[in-house]
Amino acid sequence: MSGKFIVFEGVEGSGKSTQIQLAAEWLKSLPGKNQSAIVTREPGGTNLGRQIRQMLLNDPSNDIGNRTELLLYGADRAQHVESIVKPHLKLGDLVLCDRFTDSTIAYQGYGRGFDRDEIDRVNQLATGGLQSDLTFWLDLDVTIGLQRVGLRGQPDRMERANLDFHQRVRQGYQELANSYPNRIVRIDADRSATVIQMEIQTILTQQKWFDLGSADTATVTDARPPK
Amino acid sequence: MSGKFIVFEGVEGSGKSTQIQLAAEWLKSLPGKNQSAIVTREPGGTNLGRQIRQMLLNDPSNDIGNRTELLLYGADRAQHVESIVKPHLKLGDLVLCDRFTDSTIAYQGYGRGFDRDEIDRVNQLATGGLQSDLTFWLDLDVTIGLQRVGLRGQPDRMERANLDFHQRVRQGYQELANSYPNRIVRIDADRSATVIQMEIQTILTQQKWFDLGSADTATVTDARPPK
Repeated sequence: MSGKFIVFEGVEGSGKSTQIQLAAEWLKSLPGKNQSAIVTREPGGTNLGRQIRQMLLNDPSNDIGNRTELLLYGADRAQHVESIVKPHLKLGDLVLCDRFTDSTIAYQGYGRGFDRDEIDRVNQLATGGLQSDLTFWLDLDVTIGLQRVGLRGQPDRMERANLDFHQRVRQGYQELANSYPNRIVRIDADRSATVIQMEIQTILTQQKWFDLGSADTATVTDARPPK
Repeated sequence: MSGKFIVFEGVEGSGKSTQIQLAAEWLKSLPGKNQSAIVTREPGGTNLGRQIRQMLLNDPSNDIGNRTELLLYGADRAQHVESIVKPHLKLGDLVLCDRFTDSTIAYQGYGRGFDRDEIDRVNQLATGGLQSDLTFWLDLDVTIGLQRVGLRGQPDRMERANLDFHQRVRQGYQELANSYPNRIVRIDADRSATVIQMEIQTILTQQKWFDLGSADTATVTDARPPK
């Protein structure tokens, strides 16, 4: 596995999709290198996964049981890891993924109340032990995130869950970030998309995972706001 | 849980669907009782499960990974147990089910080669520990079964697996039957459907799970062939 696996996590409306897109465009624009980056997501990163995503998020009857939900996310992940993530990592690519195992711990563990052991076993079975090299946790007050989601139209099944559920999910991310400080970076997502993206680019640049080319090296600066 | 959970298992073409249908019709025809029986199956016993069954068996690209397969069977089972099997057992019904947890041990464990521990964990998560009260294992030489399947048209994804795979599945059922002699009854499926059905009815009658009515009690005889 010579590529790098970069995951974006966060509650509903935290801006993951925007940031992953901006990061991919930035990576593609870098000169003087032979690096390829792909953007993918869970659930729904494969043909089979798109059917599973449809079941999980757009089911109008809303009657999926919690155990079913956990196993469906696992099935989506297993197919995605095997047919997309691992092959691209083997090619040396940067894989940018919208949600991964931490989503399952936060949503099904903290949100739905499954034991951490049960969650870990499903994640282990689905991934064969694969972890991200770096996870950006876009942290945002859930009321702000849900407000943003409300503006973009019909909410999906997860977005329709109650406020307490989403608060527990955020709490889950907080505890994960505390437990894995080397892997998970908290990003304050209550700022403009441009400022957030500059912070993400700075952190990625610091990893030295890719050749920025001599012209660019000096121009990347720390964009984080003053404390 | 006052109902009884009766499962039919076996390799492809072993006659499960025929036997479960005949058993259900027989149970419905019994006089003088207030017992209701339902016939169901895995995968595909729920609306969600029918979509999962379609993915698992009728996927033309045939590119479902083994981990994905195991987790999809688990998701189908979780939804089925929660929304069909348990509610009917609570009502006191006889639930006749075409395939259950032993299929996963035989097909994904013995057939695909997953550890028994991994299989047991997925089954436990999907069922919450529910087991059958009685399992009829319709045992048949796999070459005969696959021949029957070939006669009924286009084989599905499981039926298309190679002969070695199906031999291992049968071996799996044999070892399960050895391990759980009180729960699993081996039925020689290389006989006429009528003879097999009479043996099944005899065994069900011996369980005394339902009131046959005075008129019937004396007419049920042991239909098993002489040893």
